[in-house]
Amino acid sequence: MSVAPIAGRAAIVGAATTEFSKNSGRSELRLAVEAISAALRDAGIEPAAVDGLNSFTMDNNEITAVARNLGVPRLTFFAQTPWGGGGGCGTLTHAAAAITSGLADVVVCFRAMNERSQQRLGQPPASSASPAMVTGRALDNAWSQPFGISTAASMMALAARRHMHEYGVTSEDLGRVTVQERDYAATNPNAWFHGRPLTLDEHQASRMIADPLRLLDCCQESDGAVAFVVTSIERARDLPSTPVVIEAATQGAGSNHVQMATPYREDITGAEEIENVGRVLWRQSGRTSADVDLAILYDHFSFAVLAQLEALGFCQRGEAAEFVRSGAIGRGGQLPVNTNGGQLGEAYIHGFNGIAEAVRQLRRTAPNQVADASAALVTSGSHVPTSGVLLARG
Amino acid sequence: MSVAPIAGRAAIVGAATTEFSKNSGRSELRLAVEAISAALRDAGIEPAAVDGLNSFTMDNNEITAVARNLGVPRLTFFAQTPWGGGGGCGTLTHAAAAITSGLADVVVCFRAMNERSQQRLGQPPASSASPAMVTGRALDNAWSQPFGISTAASMMALAARRHMHEYGVTSEDLGRVTVQERDYAATNPNAWFHGRPLTLDEHQASRMIADPLRLLDCCQESDGAVAFVVTSIERARDLPSTPVVIEAATQGAGSNHVQMATPYREDITGAEEIENVGRVLWRQSGRTSADVDLAILYDHFSFAVLAQLEALGFCQRGEAAEFVRSGAIGRGGQLPVNTNGGQLGEAYIHGFNGIAEAVRQLRRTAPNQVADASAALVTSGSHVPTSGVLLARG
Repeated sequence: MSVAPIAGRAAIVGAATTEFSKNSGRSELRLAVEAISAALRDAGIEPAAVDGLNSFTMDNNEITAVARNLGVPRLTFFAQTPWGGGGGCGTLTHAAAAITSGLADVVVCFRAMNERSQQRLGQPPASSASPAMVTGRALDNAWSQPFGISTAASMMALAARRHMHEYGVTSEDLGRVTVQERDYAATNPNAWFHGRPLTLDEHQASRMIADPLRLLDCCQESDGAVAFVVTSIERARDLPSTPVVIEAATQGAGSNHVQMATPYREDITGAEEIENVGRVLWRQSGRTSADVDLAILYDHFSFAVLAQLEALGFCQRGEAAEFVRSGAIGRGGQLPVNTNGGQLGEAYIHGFNGIAEAVRQLRRTAPNQVADASAALVTSGSHVPTSGVLLARG
Repeated sequence: MSVAPIAGRAAIVGAATTEFSKNSGRSELRLAVEAISAALRDAGIEPAAVDGLNSFTMDNNEITAVARNLGVPRLTFFAQTPWGGGGGCGTLTHAAAAITSGLADVVVCFRAMNERSQQRLGQPPASSASPAMVTGRALDNAWSQPFGISTAASMMALAARRHMHEYGVTSEDLGRVTVQERDYAATNPNAWFHGRPLTLDEHQASRMIADPLRLLDCCQESDGAVAFVVTSIERARDLPSTPVVIEAATQGAGSNHVQMATPYREDITGAEEIENVGRVLWRQSGRTSADVDLAILYDHFSFAVLAQLEALGFCQRGEAAEFVRSGAIGRGGQLPVNTNGGQLGEAYIHGFNGIAEAVRQLRRTAPNQVADASAALVTSGSHVPTSGVLLARG
């Protein structure tokens, strides 16, 4: 199959985050505008030049309010991506598609959330307990919520337990993912857990949230915002910063999908959505798993990192725990993963902060810099309709 | 500016609607699957070949539930478009962008709603009266809802009244739009008002909803679903039906936007978002307002048709009422508009049924067929972030 027109046509030319906290003390609108303004300054582009604006369906900000407060006078492209964290690289994918198609010249992608101080995604939403479960996600949830499957952790627990059963993976194996991410976070000044590395014993001592997932297998809940500026590769070359080229981009949903982690599939040990994403990214970019210098793998739960390492072909099915034990995802390893500390260690901004880390790595300004980083694979979401990009130093 | 890569790259190859009613008697999920299945049959494409699926953020259906029930095994593209009816041509725009970019081969766009029997958009939503008006649209609404601006009609009334004041437009002028649409609806078997034309006196006798908008200036509330299948122009040529080429496609948001009809602009008599859309559509397609055979103009309110005729350059500012009085939008007129009866006469499916009418016209299978129809301009939404396409018989 030929390379898609989208491959290599667009680049990230601006990136910024707010601080990450447990209580930002300001509105999600203000967080969004702060992050976007900083990303535009980073890009050297005026707000008036922005003509595309997109985010997640779960972002509470109206694009009109964001545009109004930024001083963006008109938009020719806007979209939202569903499925929470699955939308992260999806917004970049849509931005790149808009640019490839000539729909827009400068697309801003953002995610702003007071996800700890305002609306905690780790808790069952009040609306999902509504008696009027006649539509949408509520309808799907109605099959399992009466039995206690009411949070992301409880959904992912089923897949994690089955995977552990099939491949002899232990709670310690999950813990090693968290310990590794906290090791990166400890030396990342932007990370919530900066200066606070974790031992495996501490992981093992943390309380069970949804067996087999302990507290320290679950990502944080965070307040903050992240924004990116995407433009054409031609325009990118005229801007001050090193372009981060979107070499490949796609979304990926899988078969017979229900909720998170789809308990009704024949095989629930894998990460079918990420397999679908990986297949497209390798094809579009012409790269293989040996041709990337680092990976940002969506880590709402430690288990998701193991499942994705296998789904993307960095190791064989059932071998991810051993891959992690070998030090492969750590400093100087074969494939450094989530070098910002990930969502377990830095912050949980629906994966958007992981994309910011990939940009830093490829610009070679990351706190935990991977030597000569030139290509990074990034995923957003896992076990839901999901997305991924392959980014390269331009 | 050069023609955008998206221009003419994709085509609508399947289209279908359910019946339109005030109580469908079935779920929105079933409506969606029925319409999509019929559109795929119309296209001669199997569900398994679908790899893109998009809709409105306001659609209650999860794409996963729709895909699961259709038998679509994987998706590489999905998006949602915000701002209600503004999203209609937006979904087609995103579909065309996905195809132009190589993100997907066959994209289904759908809108399914029990908008009369289940969730009436014509009434103030309970959630917007929430005391926790801290985020999103609720935040914008908080400035005007305490003063009674709580429905689409009440927002549009401000713009309509100002326009009428500036240009000497009367309630009868608004009524002539409704009367014309009901004339088309009367001979369209799919229309709710089939066989029921309207007189201007009846319009004038209808009760005031939000001065100057009477009941018969407001679109219907309807149950139903509409779906389209979009693919590349190359693939379209191998399929049985006449392709309806997406010659041009864009979205359009305007300056300083607040709510619907943005009461805070200097000039609230126009339709800035549709002006922005028109400018792009004419540029991408190389056509002028003289080069289209009919128009489908989003008619949540009769007034919106007048504003858009001017914004798109079919007549000068302030001259739309006279344009309508002249018979220009009627049978055999200079620019037949909303030949299905529109949302005032056929049904209100967030404008998606208007796109279906454009497809029928260009296939030359419409109940009120425009002779030799070869090109149609379609808008979705007006006075909100909005969208439009220019469609041509392939």
